[in-house]
Amino acid sequence: MFDELKEECGLIGISLKKSSPEFIKNLYLGLFSLQHRGQESCGIAYTLDNKIKLLIRQGLVSGNFFKSLPLDVSTTSGIGHVRYSTCGESNLVNAQPFIFNCNKGTLAIAHNGNIPNVEIIKDQLIQSGSIFQTTSDSEVLVHLLARIPGNNFKDSIISALNQLKGAYSMLVLHEDSVIAFRDQFGFRPLCYGKIDNGYIFASETNALDIMGAEYIADVEPGEIIFCKNGEIEKQRFAISNKVTQCIFELIYFARPDSYVFGESVHEVRQKMGVKLAKARMCDPDIVIAVPDSGTSAALGFAREAGIPYEIGLIRNHYTGRTFIKPGQNIREESVKIKLNPVKSIIKGKKLAVIDDSLVRGTTSSKIVKLLKSAGAKEVHLFLSSPGITHSCFFGIDTPTRKELLSANHSPEEIAKIIGADSVTFLSIEDLKQCVKNPDKFCFACFTGEYPIPVIENDDIVIKSKQ
Amino acid sequence: MFDELKEECGLIGISLKKSSPEFIKNLYLGLFSLQHRGQESCGIAYTLDNKIKLLIRQGLVSGNFFKSLPLDVSTTSGIGHVRYSTCGESNLVNAQPFIFNCNKGTLAIAHNGNIPNVEIIKDQLIQSGSIFQTTSDSEVLVHLLARIPGNNFKDSIISALNQLKGAYSMLVLHEDSVIAFRDQFGFRPLCYGKIDNGYIFASETNALDIMGAEYIADVEPGEIIFCKNGEIEKQRFAISNKVTQCIFELIYFARPDSYVFGESVHEVRQKMGVKLAKARMCDPDIVIAVPDSGTSAALGFAREAGIPYEIGLIRNHYTGRTFIKPGQNIREESVKIKLNPVKSIIKGKKLAVIDDSLVRGTTSSKIVKLLKSAGAKEVHLFLSSPGITHSCFFGIDTPTRKELLSANHSPEEIAKIIGADSVTFLSIEDLKQCVKNPDKFCFACFTGEYPIPVIENDDIVIKSKQ
Amino acid sequence: MFDELKEECGLIGISLKKSSPEFIKNLYLGLFSLQHRGQESCGIAYTLDNKIKLLIRQGLVSGNFFKSLPLDVSTTSGIGHVRYSTCGESNLVNAQPFIFNCNKGTLAIAHNGNIPNVEIIKDQLIQSGSIFQTTSDSEVLVHLLARIPGNNFKDSIISALNQLKGAYSMLVLHEDSVIAFRDQFGFRPLCYGKIDNGYIFASETNALDIMGAEYIADVEPGEIIFCKNGEIEKQRFAISNKVTQCIFELIYFARPDSYVFGESVHEVRQKMGVKLAKARMCDPDIVIAVPDSGTSAALGFAREAGIPYEIGLIRNHYTGRTFIKPGQNIREESVKIKLNPVKSIIKGKKLAVIDDSLVRGTTSSKIVKLLKSAGAKEVHLFLSSPGITHSCFFGIDTPTRKELLSANHSPEEIAKIIGADSVTFLSIEDLKQCVKNPDKFCFACFTGEYPIPVIENDDIVIKSKQ
Amino acid sequence: MFDELKEECGLIGISLKKSSPEFIKNLYLGLFSLQHRGQESCGIAYTLDNKIKLLIRQGLVSGNFFKSLPLDVSTTSGIGHVRYSTCGESNLVNAQPFIFNCNKGTLAIAHNGNIPNVEIIKDQLIQSGSIFQTTSDSEVLVHLLARIPGNNFKDSIISALNQLKGAYSMLVLHEDSVIAFRDQFGFRPLCYGKIDNGYIFASETNALDIMGAEYIADVEPGEIIFCKNGEIEKQRFAISNKVTQCIFELIYFARPDSYVFGESVHEVRQKMGVKLAKARMCDPDIVIAVPDSGTSAALGFAREAGIPYEIGLIRNHYTGRTFIKPGQNIREESVKIKLNPVKSIIKGKKLAVIDDSLVRGTTSSKIVKLLKSAGAKEVHLFLSSPGITHSCFFGIDTPTRKELLSANHSPEEIAKIIGADSVTFLSIEDLKQCVKNPDKFCFACFTGEYPIPVIENDDIVIKSKQ
Repeated sequence: MFDELKEECGLIGISLKKSSPEFIKNLYLGLFSLQHRGQESCGIAYTLDNKIKLLIRQGLVSGNFFKSLPLDVSTTSGIGHVRYSTCGESNLVNAQPFIFNCNKGTLAIAHNGNIPNVEIIKDQLIQSGSIFQTTSDSEVLVHLLARIPGNNFKDSIISALNQLKGAYSMLVLHEDSVIAFRDQFGFRPLCYGKIDNGYIFASETNALDIMGAEYIADVEPGEIIFCKNGEIEKQRFAISNKVTQCIFELIYFARPDSYVFGESVHEVRQKMGVKLAKARMCDPDIVIAVPDSGTSAALGFAREAGIPYEIGLIRNHYTGRTFIKPGQNIREESVKIKLNPVKSIIKGKKLAVIDDSLVRGTTSSKIVKLLKSAGAKEVHLFLSSPGITHSCFFGIDTPTRKELLSANHSPEEIAKIIGADSVTFLSIEDLKQCVKNPDKFCFACFTGEYPIPVIENDDIVIKSKQ
Repeated sequence: MFDELKEECGLIGISLKKSSPEFIKNLYLGLFSLQHRGQESCGIAYTLDNKIKLLIRQGLVSGNFFKSLPLDVSTTSGIGHVRYSTCGESNLVNAQPFIFNCNKGTLAIAHNGNIPNVEIIKDQLIQSGSIFQTTSDSEVLVHLLARIPGNNFKDSIISALNQLKGAYSMLVLHEDSVIAFRDQFGFRPLCYGKIDNGYIFASETNALDIMGAEYIADVEPGEIIFCKNGEIEKQRFAISNKVTQCIFELIYFARPDSYVFGESVHEVRQKMGVKLAKARMCDPDIVIAVPDSGTSAALGFAREAGIPYEIGLIRNHYTGRTFIKPGQNIREESVKIKLNPVKSIIKGKKLAVIDDSLVRGTTSSKIVKLLKSAGAKEVHLFLSSPGITHSCFFGIDTPTRKELLSANHSPEEIAKIIGADSVTFLSIEDLKQCVKNPDKFCFACFTGEYPIPVIENDDIVIKSKQ
Repeated sequence: MFDELKEECGLIGISLKKSSPEFIKNLYLGLFSLQHRGQESCGIAYTLDNKIKLLIRQGLVSGNFFKSLPLDVSTTSGIGHVRYSTCGESNLVNAQPFIFNCNKGTLAIAHNGNIPNVEIIKDQLIQSGSIFQTTSDSEVLVHLLARIPGNNFKDSIISALNQLKGAYSMLVLHEDSVIAFRDQFGFRPLCYGKIDNGYIFASETNALDIMGAEYIADVEPGEIIFCKNGEIEKQRFAISNKVTQCIFELIYFARPDSYVFGESVHEVRQKMGVKLAKARMCDPDIVIAVPDSGTSAALGFAREAGIPYEIGLIRNHYTGRTFIKPGQNIREESVKIKLNPVKSIIKGKKLAVIDDSLVRGTTSSKIVKLLKSAGAKEVHLFLSSPGITHSCFFGIDTPTRKELLSANHSPEEIAKIIGADSVTFLSIEDLKQCVKNPDKFCFACFTGEYPIPVIENDDIVIKSKQ
Repeated sequence: MFDELKEECGLIGISLKKSSPEFIKNLYLGLFSLQHRGQESCGIAYTLDNKIKLLIRQGLVSGNFFKSLPLDVSTTSGIGHVRYSTCGESNLVNAQPFIFNCNKGTLAIAHNGNIPNVEIIKDQLIQSGSIFQTTSDSEVLVHLLARIPGNNFKDSIISALNQLKGAYSMLVLHEDSVIAFRDQFGFRPLCYGKIDNGYIFASETNALDIMGAEYIADVEPGEIIFCKNGEIEKQRFAISNKVTQCIFELIYFARPDSYVFGESVHEVRQKMGVKLAKARMCDPDIVIAVPDSGTSAALGFAREAGIPYEIGLIRNHYTGRTFIKPGQNIREESVKIKLNPVKSIIKGKKLAVIDDSLVRGTTSSKIVKLLKSAGAKEVHLFLSSPGITHSCFFGIDTPTRKELLSANHSPEEIAKIIGADSVTFLSIEDLKQCVKNPDKFCFACFTGEYPIPVIENDDIVIKSKQ
């Protein structure tokens, strides 16, 4: 459900053979197509005359940031970042890319995800004299790098990455190289594609599309790719026995026109809708989606069930995060502001309402209320994911278990709590059948089987999957 | 087609019996729900301590404007405005509401539409010593008002309105009265609704919904409503023999969850899709919409034709007008930025693509190209309006006839020009069957039969409908 | 005394034969040299491509205003303005130049001074339908102009000026003409000078100096000068029987390096000091000035008395109006912030402290306290003007008589009130001997003999000089 | 000469026994009185709820910075800084106080001066893994501090300071302690005073005056003072055999109402004028100062010589650095903008013009030209310092020797170069007689005898005094 889950970031990187006057424009376009992955701040870093230039701003890519871009710069190498804060205050200090100067040179870093248990390493570094500039996990990598003797940058970064177990995808700009790597479990997405003049790296394929790049592959879990002068060099910094990609990228975060982890997001969601339709216990008159994340599944549901798909909720697309944030008494009306029911459609109907997930239930509760007050006869809520019973420690900002409705209530109880006539979750088995390689995903938020041991509320969770 | 047609404005007004600390918040919410009617500037005016306070800003309602609102003000009377420029530069000087001080007191004015031939009256006023502050048509009304002797405000405004023949809906704030009126032809919409504590005026009903107001009626063409202390007083300033409401409000401008001119926008658009499906000469595999304005019609089309409706184009909702405007070389990519095809859906398919209208054809041409490059086998474009052959003089910013594709080409020629396999327009007869009272609409942009004589390129057009 | 009296404005105008790429820079430099005449807002208007361009900003000339200047524009005609508000709120609405569009064309107006009794004419205009945009007196002139039939601009403006009795100096930009005029009494200064390529108009000669212009003459009271293409045409709009220039321009407002009303400001002030020294009844050890307005007189005093001149008070020159304004509790410390005593100089000394004037006495009181707490043995305050006993109605923002210390107290009483050991005012006779033509000045604030009848607190004052 | 020499910074610190609601106001007032020491950026850091809050801005203390202050905060401990860049770009990254988080806690640092040869230590730190955030010398201190094992903050900072030889005065905020120290040579000033509720630290005594604090002493060279809860604890981190205070603080940087290094700045400057008068070889008609730094000396000169002191140059006090910076063609006019001659004073006179120093001679050259064009018969320039022949490496931004006029020319040659009739420098012997303890000053810029060995243009300078 929108506004109930937040992910961290979107990444874009470009590395060209010959410098191009369209470089900044393309970096911008790529970033723009990843806007849905982070609306709080954005930034780019690029190499010019052997220096790394940085430009970061709070707010949307399409706002003041665009106006401040040096669109006439011609260069070959750069990275970009959009950010959704999972922690820390929402200010410029945390906007990425970060720039660090160390004995291995100047680095710009853009990262997505996090490094669980990073605090242990960080404390050791601080105790022995390291001074941290940010609260970002990625700074730990730079300090590890700076502590490695010698000047071989490639060996050093591989050696530093060996010391980190995490859930991160990162792009690093170093001199005129763009370096891409993904943690050994492959939690967060990162793919790359080719254009005539070089390579594009991005969190989702729709960023490749907008630049006319041809998708090549995902950066492999545990793989690091050095890209310079239009040449790619791949190495492995870790052996990846176990791949645990985040299933929520497919359920909610990614845009339906993207391919993520090699899957068409739209198709996976349509299949979820088909599965939900097969499992339905009620007989709705029409199927409506909670836009936009429920739309693909709703279409699949409607087709499978042979029930008309309708536009029952109109989303106001002018609602950025900004104007809701102030915390003023407008917050309560946030759902009403974002969604308006189409009364002529809804009045007197039994509705199958398709949404992607249910977290705390507060938004769902408001939507049900909204639909009923618009005249809906019955509201049957279908979620294209299982009930979320456990917190995420790998980059998604989920509430604690106490606040997770499914951790504490049955679907029947949830229906009562939110005022719906019924609530149906996608079963974990059905979910697994919607993707090609279910073994390569992390379902910990539904099962509690964390692929890496995590510390939860000061107690060590040992439910590691093995 | 988005970006090819612009309308002027959205209006909101609130008049309460008892002053409310939620006044500004509600004014804001109403304005916010009308954001789609104008994204260039916004403003509110309200009465406080016998003075009219004004707050205007460039840009979106949800941006800096929100932050600058005095949310703690408690009052009874105010109006708001969002603006899309049809003429004049896009600067704060033209942002509304306007404030005027004259011998009838201080007035704040928010208007939607225009007054054709206003220049003649304006010239007379200037020649006899009037000094205009704005280039807005509505200032003429104030000067006429100021020239009327005596102090009876109600009589004076009615007398002034009698001297204007136009295509306007306006809200005026005068002392603690909100005054609403609509030109005698009823070109632009304006409705009102009731809440416990008073009345709400708005361009569309979705603004009533967001405040929980119950729709009462449209302001009648030629009617003026004075609202104060929760009391309404209706008068007529003109007899309205001929009502000519703008059909494009239903085709394109209004939000599908609104009722406009007493019609459900969504239902009218679905009917258009049904009519288009019946008239189809091809056999598409799937139906897709150009989001968002083509969506309702696409659903109607798909259902009537028994062909699957699919999400074939994803709209990036972060594209405000701001970032496209700069005119830099990004403009060319504007369609690519706004729409991304879902390749897995489109590849190898014969598409029925439903859009609302076709003006210059430039955007349509880009969409066809986009779909073909994503692998579409055939692209059949359906427009839920007839071909636009004539310019509008009543508030919509259409190009001159030379630039209107349908004024100069047959559908077959247009298909060739834009690269589509076929282009099908809704016939004017079918269009008329989609609304309840076809006699009460203006179809001049399709027929050239202007309800008021207009001056086109220095030649007087006498094609008045009689 | 600084901060106790405020005047309105500074004016600059440039009219060239041939357009110059240094035009804006020179307009700026002129304005900058007049900064002391108004720090609240500033603006320029210039003609480019037959249009008048306007640029206004709040704050100092040297701040953001400078950054926003189009320094590369090449043109021939323009005017500029700095403003100190005497009335109205301190906002952009009142920043000048004003722009008005009327049947005589577009006019930019910069004015200094005011028009007493303007309300009567203004009311008549409003009653007959004029709509005012500003609260500025100069707008009345434009409305009068617009009401005059016919299109002869020169005749019309002369005719309009005939209807106004005031205390104004104005510059008007109309097409590519700069028009300068001064009311028939000559209250406010306005002079002009010549450069190779044309003419410069300015409130003070230091603005001519900075542009290397040679002073020609003052604009005569009742004279209007039309300047275009480097040609000057002089006319009279009123016969000036009685000239009453503001003596406070010489006492306080003008910069000492300027000539105003044909007098060297520095020399006049030195003479005042000489007169004060001659009249002294005490025997001070050193002479110090309240910087900067008391400095010239202090030098004259010291030389005449044969007593050392010392720097006893250091002025912090970073105190703009801005940071004092907020009204926070910092205001009380305002004198302490602006002036710091040089203890090593002051300790144990009998001081002759020279200041320009004493209004409410609040600032003087704080200065005396400051000096005593720094160790001064005696503080004898000398004012280079007589006691102010009457309010000004001709452009200076004086308090009402109740608040004027000299209107209600003898010098001995004032000394007690402010804590000084003695207070000595310059006598009106001595003051008159400091200027060349004492008959051509207004001394009403010292005598109550107003040259134009004024309305004071609803009672008509008939103390006109005759 | 103004604009030819720049010093780094001004420091202010407050440590109170009981938290005060006037804390921020007083910190501000202190900073404001030090504005002349740095106009490029300003900032404060204070402790609130065990956290250090930071507020920095570009520009003047009295501008936007003031508006952004949390004047209602009540607290006990804080420091402030104004900055004039000697190196690095003029941007917010370099604005102070700096904040660092290390294993000794969070520190805010404000520093004045620099650490010559710091690069050697810095390189070692970087090679062993330290990552620097700023280009400021003071960050080296923090890294040294972080490398010291254990948690005793006081011992650690003393140990770290032992490793640095520099020309710095610093204030550190750590938890609720304000820590002040001055390098062992005492190059830069730092004093402290007492108020009822605690202690004030400041670069100059005028900051104590504005808060009503009583001067206690200078922080001794090599001394560190820990101040907390209104208690002071003094320690020594270095033995100070040789004190070399910067003589230019007295010649130019400090405000005349301050005591610096125990000397009254005004009195020292007056003595300089007296010495110059005694050494004069010409017979001027009047004495004028280049305001403001030449004023005290000019008064001393005039009195000693028995020649009238006059105000011959008026300084426009609205010239901040901002508006000159843009580098546009206005720069050339910078002297003309800042200074205007009083023609009535100057015309036909032989002038003794007193300025503080002569660096490149460009400004002096312009002033001579200005005075001559205003009619001066002869211009005799007197400098209240010897000729500057060597660069400073201890915190003042002097040009290289090639650009220093006195390093390459005799006074006679300089007179020719700048167009003056004569140029007289204060002799080093005379200069020494103007201060109480001439042995405790650095005169290296006049003599080349650097108290610390410095590296000049890659060659090690061994001219250490010894």
